[in-house]
Amino acid sequence: MLYSLMAGGKRMRPLLVMAACEAMEGNEDAALDAACAVEMVHTYSLIHDDLPAMDNDDYRRGKLTNHKVFGEAAAILAGDALLTHAFYLVAQLSGTYGIPADKVVEITLDLSELSGPKGMVGGQAADMEGEQGLTELSQLEYIHLHKTSDLIMFSLLAGGRIAGADAARLEALRIFGRKIGLAFQIQDDILDIVGDETKLGKKTQSDIKQEKVTYPYFIGLEASKKEVERLTEEAKSAISKAGFTNPARLLEIADYLMNRDH
Amino acid sequence: MLYSLMAGGKRMRPLLVMAACEAMEGNEDAALDAACAVEMVHTYSLIHDDLPAMDNDDYRRGKLTNHKVFGEAAAILAGDALLTHAFYLVAQLSGTYGIPADKVVEITLDLSELSGPKGMVGGQAADMEGEQGLTELSQLEYIHLHKTSDLIMFSLLAGGRIAGADAARLEALRIFGRKIGLAFQIQDDILDIVGDETKLGKKTQSDIKQEKVTYPYFIGLEASKKEVERLTEEAKSAISKAGFTNPARLLEIADYLMNRDH
Repeated sequence: MLYSLMAGGKRMRPLLVMAACEAMEGNEDAALDAACAVEMVHTYSLIHDDLPAMDNDDYRRGKLTNHKVFGEAAAILAGDALLTHAFYLVAQLSGTYGIPADKVVEITLDLSELSGPKGMVGGQAADMEGEQGLTELSQLEYIHLHKTSDLIMFSLLAGGRIAGADAARLEALRIFGRKIGLAFQIQDDILDIVGDETKLGKKTQSDIKQEKVTYPYFIGLEASKKEVERLTEEAKSAISKAGFTNPARLLEIADYLMNRDH
Repeated sequence: MLYSLMAGGKRMRPLLVMAACEAMEGNEDAALDAACAVEMVHTYSLIHDDLPAMDNDDYRRGKLTNHKVFGEAAAILAGDALLTHAFYLVAQLSGTYGIPADKVVEITLDLSELSGPKGMVGGQAADMEGEQGLTELSQLEYIHLHKTSDLIMFSLLAGGRIAGADAARLEALRIFGRKIGLAFQIQDDILDIVGDETKLGKKTQSDIKQEKVTYPYFIGLEASKKEVERLTEEAKSAISKAGFTNPARLLEIADYLMNRDH
Protein backbone atom coordinates (compact mmCIF):
# COMPACT_ATOMS: atom_id res chain seq x y z
CA MET A 1 0.00 0.00 0.00
CA LEU A 2 2.74 2.43 0.98
CA TYR A 3 4.98 1.60 -1.97
CA SER A 4 2.42 2.83 -4.50
CA LEU A 5 1.09 5.67 -2.35
CA MET A 6 4.61 7.03 -1.95
CA ALA A 7 5.67 6.52 -5.58
CA GLY A 8 5.11 10.17 -6.41
CA GLY A 9 2.81 11.68 -8.99
CA LYS A 10 1.32 15.14 -9.32
CA ARG A 11 -0.97 14.80 -6.26
CA MET A 12 -3.50 16.76 -8.29
CA ARG A 13 -6.56 15.34 -6.53
CA PRO A 14 -5.31 16.02 -2.98
CA LEU A 15 -4.36 19.53 -4.10
CA LEU A 16 -7.90 20.10 -5.34
CA VAL A 17 -9.38 18.97 -2.01
CA MET A 18 -7.13 21.46 -0.21
CA ALA A 19 -7.82 24.28 -2.69
CA ALA A 20 -11.61 23.80 -2.51
CA CYS A 21 -11.46 23.85 1.29
CA GLU A 22 -9.22 26.91 1.21
CA ALA A 23 -11.67 28.69 -1.11
CA MET A 24 -14.13 28.66 1.82
CA GLU A 25 -11.48 28.88 4.55
CA GLY A 26 -12.46 25.53 6.05
CA ASN A 27 -10.61 23.14 8.40
CA GLU A 28 -7.31 22.30 6.68
CA ASP A 29 -6.48 19.30 8.86
CA ALA A 30 -9.77 17.63 8.03
CA ALA A 31 -9.26 18.47 4.35
CA LEU A 32 -5.83 16.84 4.47
CA ASP A 33 -7.35 13.55 5.63
CA ALA A 34 -9.93 13.70 2.84
CA ALA A 35 -7.06 14.52 0.45
CA CYS A 36 -5.26 11.35 1.57
CA ALA A 37 -8.47 9.37 1.07
CA VAL A 38 -8.83 10.49 -2.53
CA GLU A 39 -5.17 9.79 -3.27
CA MET A 40 -5.70 6.26 -1.89
CA VAL A 41 -8.64 5.73 -4.24
CA HIS A 42 -6.62 7.08 -7.17
CA THR A 43 -3.64 4.87 -6.23
CA TYR A 44 -5.78 1.73 -5.86
CA SER A 45 -7.21 2.36 -9.34
CA LEU A 46 -3.68 2.65 -10.78
CA ILE A 47 -2.49 -0.55 -9.05
CA HIS A 48 -5.42 -2.55 -10.43
CA ASP A 49 -5.17 -0.83 -13.83
CA ASP A 50 -1.51 -1.82 -14.17
CA LEU A 51 -2.18 -5.54 -13.56
CA PRO A 52 -1.36 -7.98 -16.36
CA ALA A 53 -5.07 -8.69 -16.90
CA MET A 54 -5.72 -4.95 -17.38
CA ASP A 55 -3.11 -2.64 -18.98
CA ASN A 56 -0.15 -4.89 -18.13
CA ASP A 57 2.25 -2.06 -17.30
CA ASP A 58 5.69 -2.72 -15.80
CA TYR A 59 6.42 0.90 -14.92
CA ARG A 60 4.42 3.73 -13.39
CA ARG A 61 5.90 7.12 -12.57
CA GLY A 62 9.34 5.74 -13.45
CA LYS A 63 9.13 2.95 -10.87
CA LEU A 64 8.22 -0.71 -11.16
CA THR A 65 4.49 -1.24 -10.81
CA ASN A 66 3.12 -2.76 -7.61
CA HIS A 67 2.65 -6.28 -8.97
CA LYS A 68 6.17 -6.30 -10.46
CA VAL A 69 7.57 -5.76 -6.97
CA PHE A 70 5.13 -7.65 -4.72
CA GLY A 71 3.40 -10.06 -7.06
CA GLU A 72 -0.11 -9.97 -8.46
CA ALA A 73 -1.93 -11.34 -5.43
CA ALA A 74 -0.42 -8.75 -3.10
CA ALA A 75 -1.13 -6.00 -5.64
CA ILE A 76 -4.81 -6.95 -5.86
CA LEU A 77 -5.09 -6.96 -2.06
CA ALA A 78 -3.14 -3.69 -1.70
CA GLY A 79 -5.62 -2.05 -4.06
CA ASP A 80 -8.60 -3.49 -2.19
CA ALA A 81 -7.17 -2.32 1.14
CA LEU A 82 -6.45 1.21 -0.13
CA LEU A 83 -10.01 1.57 -1.41
CA THR A 84 -11.45 0.32 1.87
CA HIS A 85 -9.17 2.47 4.00
CA ALA A 86 -10.15 5.58 2.02
CA PHE A 87 -13.68 5.15 3.38
CA TYR A 88 -12.24 4.85 6.88
CA LEU A 89 -10.41 8.15 6.49
CA VAL A 90 -13.63 9.84 5.39
CA ALA A 91 -15.74 8.26 8.16
CA GLN A 92 -13.34 9.32 10.91
CA LEU A 93 -13.62 13.01 9.93
CA SER A 94 -16.57 13.30 12.28
CA GLY A 95 -14.93 11.90 15.40
CA THR A 96 -11.48 13.36 14.73
CA TYR A 97 -12.30 16.88 13.53
CA GLY A 98 -15.91 17.40 14.53
CA ILE A 99 -17.12 17.59 10.93
CA PRO A 100 -20.91 17.10 11.32
CA ALA A 101 -22.01 13.49 10.77
CA ASP A 102 -24.50 14.47 8.04
CA LYS A 103 -21.66 16.10 6.05
CA VAL A 104 -19.53 12.99 6.49
CA VAL A 105 -22.40 10.88 5.18
CA GLU A 106 -22.66 13.18 2.14
CA ILE A 107 -18.93 12.87 1.47
CA THR A 108 -19.26 9.07 1.76
CA LEU A 109 -22.18 9.09 -0.69
CA ASP A 110 -20.15 11.23 -3.12
CA LEU A 111 -17.11 8.97 -2.87
CA SER A 112 -19.07 5.75 -3.34
CA GLU A 113 -21.03 7.17 -6.29
CA LEU A 114 -18.18 8.95 -8.05
CA SER A 115 -15.64 6.13 -7.66
CA GLY A 116 -18.13 3.25 -8.02
CA PRO A 117 -19.95 1.37 -10.80
CA LYS A 118 -21.58 4.53 -12.18
CA GLY A 119 -18.42 6.59 -11.63
CA MET A 120 -14.72 5.78 -11.96
CA VAL A 121 -15.05 1.99 -12.16
CA GLY A 122 -17.84 2.42 -14.70
CA GLY A 123 -15.49 4.57 -16.78
CA GLN A 124 -12.74 1.95 -16.49
CA ALA A 125 -15.12 -0.79 -17.62
CA ALA A 126 -16.32 1.29 -20.58
CA ASP A 127 -12.70 2.05 -21.50
CA MET A 128 -11.80 -1.62 -21.40
CA GLU A 129 -14.81 -2.66 -23.47
CA GLY A 130 -14.37 0.15 -25.94
CA GLU A 131 -10.65 -0.19 -26.61
CA GLN A 132 -10.00 0.59 -30.26
CA GLY A 133 -13.68 0.24 -31.02
CA LEU A 134 -15.00 3.74 -30.27
CA THR A 135 -16.75 5.40 -33.17
CA GLU A 136 -18.22 8.50 -31.53
CA LEU A 137 -16.69 11.38 -29.63
CA SER A 138 -19.53 11.08 -27.10
CA GLN A 139 -18.31 7.58 -26.15
CA LEU A 140 -14.83 8.91 -25.51
CA GLU A 141 -16.28 11.79 -23.50
CA TYR A 142 -18.26 9.30 -21.38
CA ILE A 143 -15.08 7.40 -20.57
CA HIS A 144 -13.13 10.56 -19.69
CA LEU A 145 -15.95 11.99 -17.59
CA HIS A 146 -16.22 8.88 -15.47
CA LYS A 147 -12.67 7.54 -15.50
CA THR A 148 -11.10 10.91 -14.74
CA SER A 149 -13.54 13.76 -14.02
CA ASP A 150 -15.60 11.92 -11.41
CA LEU A 151 -12.80 11.54 -8.90
CA ILE A 152 -11.65 15.10 -9.56
CA MET A 153 -15.22 16.24 -8.94
CA PHE A 154 -15.24 14.24 -5.72
CA SER A 155 -12.05 15.97 -4.57
CA LEU A 156 -13.60 19.40 -5.03
CA LEU A 157 -16.90 18.46 -3.39
CA ALA A 158 -15.11 16.91 -0.41
CA GLY A 159 -13.08 20.08 0.20
CA GLY A 160 -16.22 22.19 -0.23
CA ARG A 161 -18.37 20.05 2.07
CA ILE A 162 -15.71 20.04 4.80
CA ALA A 163 -15.67 23.84 4.60
CA GLY A 164 -19.46 23.99 4.78
CA ALA A 165 -20.13 25.16 1.19
CA ASP A 166 -23.81 25.77 0.37
CA ALA A 167 -25.65 24.13 -2.55
CA ALA A 168 -24.77 26.86 -5.06
CA ARG A 169 -21.05 26.72 -4.29
CA LEU A 170 -21.09 22.90 -4.36
CA GLU A 171 -22.68 23.11 -7.80
CA ALA A 172 -19.93 25.50 -8.94
CA LEU A 173 -17.30 23.03 -7.65
CA ARG A 174 -19.09 20.21 -9.49
CA ILE A 175 -19.02 22.15 -12.79
CA PHE A 176 -15.39 23.16 -12.22
CA GLY A 177 -14.43 19.51 -11.57
CA ARG A 178 -16.25 18.17 -14.59
CA LYS A 179 -14.66 20.70 -16.92
CA ILE A 180 -11.08 20.65 -15.67
CA GLY A 181 -11.25 16.84 -15.50
CA LEU A 182 -12.20 16.68 -19.15
CA ALA A 183 -9.63 19.35 -20.08
CA PHE A 184 -6.98 17.39 -18.16
CA GLN A 185 -7.69 14.26 -20.16
CA ILE A 186 -7.73 16.04 -23.51
CA GLN A 187 -4.42 17.69 -22.57
CA ASP A 188 -3.07 14.18 -21.89
CA ASP A 189 -4.10 13.14 -25.39
CA ILE A 190 -2.43 16.27 -26.83
CA LEU A 191 0.81 15.73 -24.90
CA ASP A 192 0.97 12.18 -26.20
CA ILE A 193 1.33 13.74 -29.67
CA VAL A 194 3.32 16.92 -29.12
CA GLY A 195 4.91 16.40 -25.69
CA ASP A 196 8.56 16.03 -24.70
CA GLU A 197 9.41 12.47 -23.59
CA THR A 198 11.94 13.66 -21.00
CA LYS A 199 9.49 16.04 -19.35
CA LEU A 200 6.62 13.55 -19.51
CA GLY A 201 8.71 10.69 -18.13
CA LYS A 202 7.08 8.34 -20.63
CA LYS A 203 7.12 7.57 -24.34
CA THR A 204 4.97 9.74 -26.61
CA GLN A 205 2.95 8.56 -29.64
CA SER A 206 1.77 5.59 -27.58
CA ASP A 207 -1.91 6.24 -28.36
CA ILE A 208 -1.22 6.13 -32.09
CA LYS A 209 0.89 2.99 -31.77
CA GLN A 210 -1.81 1.30 -29.70
CA GLU A 211 -4.46 2.56 -32.16
CA LYS A 212 -6.23 4.28 -29.26
CA VAL A 213 -8.84 6.79 -30.30
CA THR A 214 -8.38 10.20 -28.67
CA TYR A 215 -9.74 13.73 -28.87
CA PRO A 216 -7.18 14.74 -31.53
CA TYR A 217 -8.17 11.59 -33.46
CA PHE A 218 -11.79 12.76 -33.59
CA ILE A 219 -11.50 16.54 -33.90
CA GLY A 220 -7.83 17.23 -34.72
CA LEU A 221 -5.00 18.74 -32.70
CA GLU A 222 -5.91 22.42 -33.01
CA ALA A 223 -9.57 21.96 -32.12
CA SER A 224 -8.47 19.83 -29.15
CA LYS A 225 -6.25 22.63 -27.87
CA LYS A 226 -9.13 25.09 -28.29
CA GLU A 227 -11.39 22.70 -26.36
CA VAL A 228 -8.93 22.60 -23.44
CA GLU A 229 -8.91 26.41 -23.37
CA ARG A 230 -12.68 26.67 -23.58
CA LEU A 231 -13.26 24.12 -20.82
CA THR A 232 -10.70 25.79 -18.58
CA GLU A 233 -12.28 29.24 -19.05
CA GLU A 234 -15.74 27.88 -18.34
CA ALA A 235 -14.45 26.08 -15.24
CA LYS A 236 -12.83 29.27 -13.92
CA SER A 237 -15.91 31.31 -14.70
CA ALA A 238 -18.15 28.97 -12.67
CA ILE A 239 -15.89 29.45 -9.65
CA SER A 240 -15.48 33.21 -10.11
CA LYS A 241 -19.25 33.74 -10.18
CA ALA A 242 -19.98 31.64 -7.08
CA GLY A 243 -18.61 34.14 -4.55
CA PHE A 244 -15.97 32.10 -2.77
CA THR A 245 -13.96 33.97 -0.11
CA ASN A 246 -10.62 32.77 -1.36
CA PRO A 247 -10.76 31.10 -4.80
CA ALA A 248 -7.27 32.11 -6.02
CA ARG A 249 -5.69 28.67 -5.69
CA LEU A 250 -8.52 26.93 -7.55
CA LEU A 251 -8.17 29.33 -10.48
CA GLU A 252 -4.40 28.93 -10.43
CA ILE A 253 -4.66 25.13 -10.62
CA ALA A 254 -6.99 25.36 -13.62
CA ASP A 255 -4.42 27.50 -15.47
CA TYR A 256 -1.55 25.27 -14.40
CA LEU A 257 -3.30 22.16 -15.72
CA MET A 258 -4.08 23.84 -19.07
CA ASN A 259 -0.49 25.00 -19.57
CA ARG A 260 1.30 21.91 -18.24
CA ASP A 261 3.85 20.18 -20.45
CA HIS A 262 3.97 16.95 -18.38
CA MET B 1 -21.49 -7.84 -10.38
CA LEU B 2 -24.92 -9.47 -10.56
CA TYR B 3 -23.62 -12.81 -11.80
CA SER B 4 -21.59 -13.41 -8.65
CA LEU B 5 -24.09 -11.75 -6.28
CA MET B 6 -26.84 -14.02 -7.59
CA ALA B 7 -24.74 -17.20 -7.67
CA GLY B 8 -26.24 -18.42 -4.40
CA GLY B 9 -24.47 -19.29 -1.17
CA LYS B 10 -25.72 -19.55 2.37
CA ARG B 11 -26.37 -15.78 2.76
CA MET B 12 -25.12 -16.22 6.30
CA ARG B 13 -23.90 -12.63 6.71
CA PRO B 14 -27.13 -10.99 5.50
CA LEU B 15 -29.06 -13.34 7.78
CA LEU B 16 -26.97 -12.19 10.72
CA VAL B 17 -27.65 -8.52 9.94
CA MET B 18 -31.38 -9.26 9.90
CA ALA B 19 -31.26 -11.40 13.05
CA ALA B 20 -29.30 -8.78 15.02
CA CYS B 21 -31.76 -6.08 13.96
CA GLU B 22 -34.69 -8.36 14.85
CA ALA B 23 -33.18 -9.01 18.28
CA MET B 24 -33.83 -5.31 19.03
CA GLU B 25 -36.93 -4.99 16.84
CA GLY B 26 -35.29 -2.39 14.56
CA ASN B 27 -36.16 -1.18 11.03
CA GLU B 28 -36.13 -4.30 8.81
CA ASP B 29 -36.00 -2.41 5.50
CA ALA B 30 -32.89 -0.53 6.56
CA ALA B 31 -31.36 -3.78 7.82
CA LEU B 32 -32.06 -5.40 4.45
CA ASP B 33 -30.02 -2.73 2.68
CA ALA B 34 -27.15 -3.21 5.13
CA ALA B 35 -27.51 -6.96 4.57
CA CYS B 36 -27.10 -6.43 0.83
CA ALA B 37 -24.03 -4.27 1.49
CA VAL B 38 -22.31 -6.98 3.50
CA GLU B 39 -23.14 -9.63 0.88
CA MET B 40 -21.55 -7.34 -1.73
CA VAL B 41 -18.37 -7.11 0.34
CA HIS B 42 -18.33 -10.87 0.83
CA THR B 43 -18.94 -11.44 -2.90
CA TYR B 44 -16.21 -9.02 -3.97
CA SER B 45 -13.76 -10.84 -1.71
CA LEU B 46 -14.69 -14.18 -3.31
CA ILE B 47 -14.34 -12.81 -6.86
CA HIS B 48 -10.86 -11.46 -6.14
CA ASP B 49 -9.93 -14.56 -4.14
CA ASP B 50 -10.82 -16.84 -7.06
CA LEU B 51 -8.56 -14.98 -9.54
CA PRO B 52 -5.67 -16.90 -11.12
CA ALA B 53 -3.15 -14.80 -9.17
CA MET B 54 -4.87 -15.73 -5.90
CA ASP B 55 -6.54 -19.15 -5.39
CA ASN B 56 -7.07 -19.77 -9.13
CA ASP B 57 -10.47 -21.40 -8.76
CA ASP B 58 -12.61 -22.27 -11.78
CA TYR B 59 -15.76 -23.03 -9.81
CA ARG B 60 -17.54 -21.42 -6.88
CA ARG B 61 -20.88 -22.64 -5.53
CA GLY B 62 -21.05 -25.05 -8.45
CA LYS B 63 -20.85 -22.30 -11.06
CA LEU B 64 -17.96 -20.97 -13.11
CA THR B 65 -16.10 -18.24 -11.26
CA ASN B 66 -16.50 -14.65 -12.39
CA HIS B 67 -13.23 -14.41 -14.31
CA LYS B 68 -13.94 -17.69 -16.13
CA VAL B 69 -17.12 -16.14 -17.52
CA PHE B 70 -16.22 -12.47 -17.99
CA GLY B 71 -12.42 -12.47 -18.07
CA GLU B 72 -9.96 -11.34 -15.44
CA ALA B 73 -10.14 -7.60 -16.11
CA ALA B 74 -13.93 -7.52 -15.76
CA ALA B 75 -13.72 -9.68 -12.62
CA ILE B 76 -11.26 -7.31 -10.97
CA LEU B 77 -13.50 -4.34 -11.79
CA ALA B 78 -16.68 -6.16 -10.70
CA GLY B 79 -15.05 -6.78 -7.32
CA ASP B 80 -13.92 -3.16 -7.03
CA ALA B 81 -17.40 -1.92 -7.93
CA LEU B 82 -19.15 -4.24 -5.44
CA LEU B 83 -16.90 -3.06 -2.62
CA THR B 84 -17.48 0.59 -3.50
CA HIS B 85 -21.23 0.16 -3.90
CA ALA B 86 -21.47 -1.51 -0.49
CA PHE B 87 -20.38 1.79 1.04
CA TYR B 88 -23.05 3.56 -1.00
CA LEU B 89 -25.73 1.25 0.40
CA VAL B 90 -24.57 2.00 3.94
CA ALA B 91 -24.32 5.77 3.36
CA GLN B 92 -27.84 6.03 1.93
CA LEU B 93 -29.38 4.49 5.07
CA SER B 94 -29.63 7.98 6.50
CA GLY B 95 -31.48 9.64 3.62
CA THR B 96 -33.61 6.61 2.73
CA TYR B 97 -34.68 5.30 6.15
CA GLY B 98 -33.90 8.15 8.52
CA ILE B 99 -31.20 6.20 10.37
CA PRO B 100 -29.37 8.98 12.29
CA ALA B 101 -26.25 10.21 10.45
CA ASP B 102 -23.99 9.49 13.43
CA LYS B 103 -25.11 5.83 13.40
CA VAL B 104 -24.44 5.65 9.65
CA VAL B 105 -20.95 7.04 10.23
CA GLU B 106 -20.36 4.36 12.89
CA ILE B 107 -21.52 1.61 10.51
CA THR B 108 -19.18 3.03 7.84
CA LEU B 109 -16.30 3.05 10.33
CA ASP B 110 -17.06 -0.57 11.27
CA LEU B 111 -17.25 -1.67 7.64
CA SER B 112 -14.02 0.05 6.62
CA GLU B 113 -12.15 -1.27 9.66
CA LEU B 114 -13.50 -4.81 9.65
CA SER B 115 -13.17 -5.35 5.90
CA GLY B 116 -9.97 -3.32 5.43
CA PRO B 117 -6.21 -3.74 5.91
CA LYS B 118 -6.55 -4.57 9.62
CA GLY B 119 -9.66 -6.68 9.02
CA MET B 120 -10.70 -9.00 6.21
CA VAL B 121 -8.07 -7.94 3.66
CA GLY B 122 -5.42 -8.19 6.39
CA GLY B 123 -6.58 -11.76 7.07
CA GLN B 124 -6.41 -12.56 3.35
CA ALA B 125 -2.89 -11.17 3.10
CA ALA B 126 -1.77 -13.16 6.17
CA ASP B 127 -3.36 -16.29 4.72
CA MET B 128 -1.57 -15.80 1.43
CA GLU B 129 1.79 -15.16 3.09
CA GLY B 130 1.38 -18.00 5.55
CA GLU B 131 0.27 -20.73 3.15
CA GLN B 132 1.77 -24.03 4.27
CA GLY B 133 4.18 -22.20 6.51
CA LEU B 134 2.16 -21.75 9.72
CA THR B 135 3.76 -23.24 12.78
CA GLU B 136 1.50 -21.94 15.55
CA LEU B 137 -2.22 -22.26 16.21
CA SER B 138 -2.27 -18.56 17.08
CA GLN B 139 -1.26 -17.67 13.50
CA LEU B 140 -4.12 -19.75 12.15
CA GLU B 141 -6.50 -18.14 14.63
CA TYR B 142 -5.34 -14.67 13.48
CA ILE B 143 -6.17 -15.56 9.88
CA HIS B 144 -9.60 -16.97 10.76
CA LEU B 145 -10.47 -14.05 13.02
CA HIS B 146 -9.73 -11.49 10.33
CA LYS B 147 -10.55 -13.36 7.15
CA THR B 148 -13.87 -14.68 8.45
CA SER B 149 -14.95 -13.38 11.86
CA ASP B 150 -14.46 -9.69 11.12
CA LEU B 151 -17.12 -9.48 8.41
CA ILE B 152 -19.46 -11.64 10.50
CA MET B 153 -18.87 -9.25 13.40
CA PHE B 154 -19.63 -6.34 11.10
CA SER B 155 -22.93 -7.96 10.08
CA LEU B 156 -24.05 -8.23 13.69
CA LEU B 157 -22.93 -4.72 14.63
CA ALA B 158 -24.67 -3.22 11.58
CA GLY B 159 -27.97 -4.88 12.49
CA GLY B 160 -27.55 -3.81 16.10
CA ARG B 161 -26.64 -0.20 15.28
CA ILE B 162 -29.59 0.14 12.89
CA ALA B 163 -31.85 -1.03 15.71
CA GLY B 164 -30.25 1.42 18.14
CA ALA B 165 -28.43 -1.09 20.36
CA ASP B 166 -26.56 0.42 23.32
CA ALA B 167 -22.85 -0.14 24.02
CA ALA B 168 -23.39 -3.26 26.16
CA ARG B 169 -25.54 -4.97 23.54
CA LEU B 170 -23.12 -3.99 20.75
CA GLU B 171 -20.34 -5.59 22.81
CA ALA B 172 -22.41 -8.78 23.15
CA LEU B 173 -22.93 -8.81 19.36
CA ARG B 174 -19.19 -8.32 18.88
CA ILE B 175 -18.36 -11.29 21.13
CA PHE B 176 -21.05 -13.40 19.46
CA GLY B 177 -19.64 -12.56 16.01
CA ARG B 178 -16.06 -13.27 16.95
CA LYS B 179 -16.93 -16.66 18.43
CA ILE B 180 -19.37 -17.95 15.83
CA GLY B 181 -17.02 -16.72 13.09
CA LEU B 182 -14.17 -18.78 14.53
CA ALA B 183 -16.47 -21.75 15.14
CA PHE B 184 -17.70 -21.49 11.54
CA GLN B 185 -14.17 -21.67 10.19
CA ILE B 186 -13.16 -24.60 12.42
CA GLN B 187 -16.34 -26.41 11.33
CA ASP B 188 -15.21 -25.81 7.72
CA ASP B 189 -11.89 -27.46 8.53
CA ILE B 190 -13.73 -30.41 10.18
CA LEU B 191 -16.14 -30.86 7.26
CA ASP B 192 -13.18 -30.98 4.89
CA ILE B 193 -12.15 -34.15 6.72
CA VAL B 194 -15.41 -35.86 7.68
CA GLY B 195 -17.97 -34.16 5.39
CA ASP B 196 -20.07 -35.59 2.57
CA GLU B 197 -18.95 -34.37 -0.86
CA THR B 198 -22.50 -34.37 -2.25
CA LYS B 199 -23.85 -32.25 0.60
CA LEU B 200 -20.84 -29.93 0.60
CA GLY B 201 -20.92 -29.44 -3.18
CA LYS B 202 -17.12 -29.65 -3.23
CA LYS B 203 -14.35 -32.21 -2.83
CA THR B 204 -13.28 -33.12 0.69
CA GLN B 205 -9.72 -33.78 1.89
CA SER B 206 -8.59 -30.74 -0.09
CA ASP B 207 -6.77 -29.21 2.90
CA ILE B 208 -4.70 -32.36 3.38
CA LYS B 209 -3.93 -32.61 -0.34
CA GLN B 210 -2.88 -28.96 -0.44
CA GLU B 211 -0.88 -29.44 2.79
CA LYS B 212 -2.92 -26.66 4.37
CA VAL B 213 -2.63 -26.45 8.12
CA THR B 214 -5.98 -26.44 9.90
CA TYR B 215 -7.43 -26.66 13.40
CA PRO B 216 -7.60 -30.49 13.25
CA TYR B 217 -3.97 -30.47 12.07
CA PHE B 218 -2.90 -28.60 15.22
CA ILE B 219 -5.19 -30.02 17.90
CA GLY B 220 -6.85 -33.08 16.35
CA LEU B 221 -10.38 -33.76 15.15
CA GLU B 222 -12.05 -34.40 18.52
CA ALA B 223 -10.57 -31.33 20.20
CA SER B 224 -11.64 -29.27 17.17
CA LYS B 225 -15.23 -30.47 17.52
CA LYS B 226 -15.13 -29.61 21.22
CA GLU B 227 -13.80 -26.15 20.35
CA VAL B 228 -16.72 -25.52 17.99
CA GLU B 229 -19.14 -26.50 20.76
CA ARG B 230 -17.39 -24.36 23.35
CA LEU B 231 -17.26 -21.28 21.11
CA THR B 232 -20.92 -21.69 20.16
CA GLU B 233 -22.02 -21.98 23.80
CA GLU B 234 -19.98 -18.91 24.78
CA ALA B 235 -21.42 -16.97 21.83
CA LYS B 236 -24.99 -17.85 22.82
CA SER B 237 -24.31 -17.06 26.45
CA ALA B 238 -23.07 -13.53 25.57
CA ILE B 239 -26.34 -12.86 23.72
CA SER B 240 -28.57 -14.44 26.38
CA LYS B 241 -27.07 -12.29 29.12
CA ALA B 242 -27.38 -8.99 27.21
CA GLY B 243 -31.14 -8.62 27.55
CA PHE B 244 -32.24 -8.44 23.91
CA THR B 245 -36.01 -8.23 23.35
CA ASN B 246 -36.07 -10.93 20.70
CA PRO B 247 -32.82 -12.93 20.47
CA ALA B 248 -34.34 -16.27 19.37
CA ARG B 249 -33.14 -16.11 15.75
CA LEU B 250 -29.55 -15.24 16.72
CA LEU B 251 -29.38 -18.25 19.05
CA GLU B 252 -30.94 -20.47 16.40
CA ILE B 253 -28.35 -19.43 13.80
CA ALA B 254 -25.51 -20.25 16.22
CA ASP B 255 -26.89 -23.78 16.69
CA TYR B 256 -27.52 -24.18 12.97
CA LEU B 257 -23.94 -23.24 12.12
CA MET B 258 -22.52 -25.66 14.72
CA ASN B 259 -24.61 -28.57 13.48
CA ARG B 260 -24.37 -27.90 9.74
CA ASP B 261 -23.09 -30.64 7.44
CA HIS B 262 -22.41 -28.32 4.48
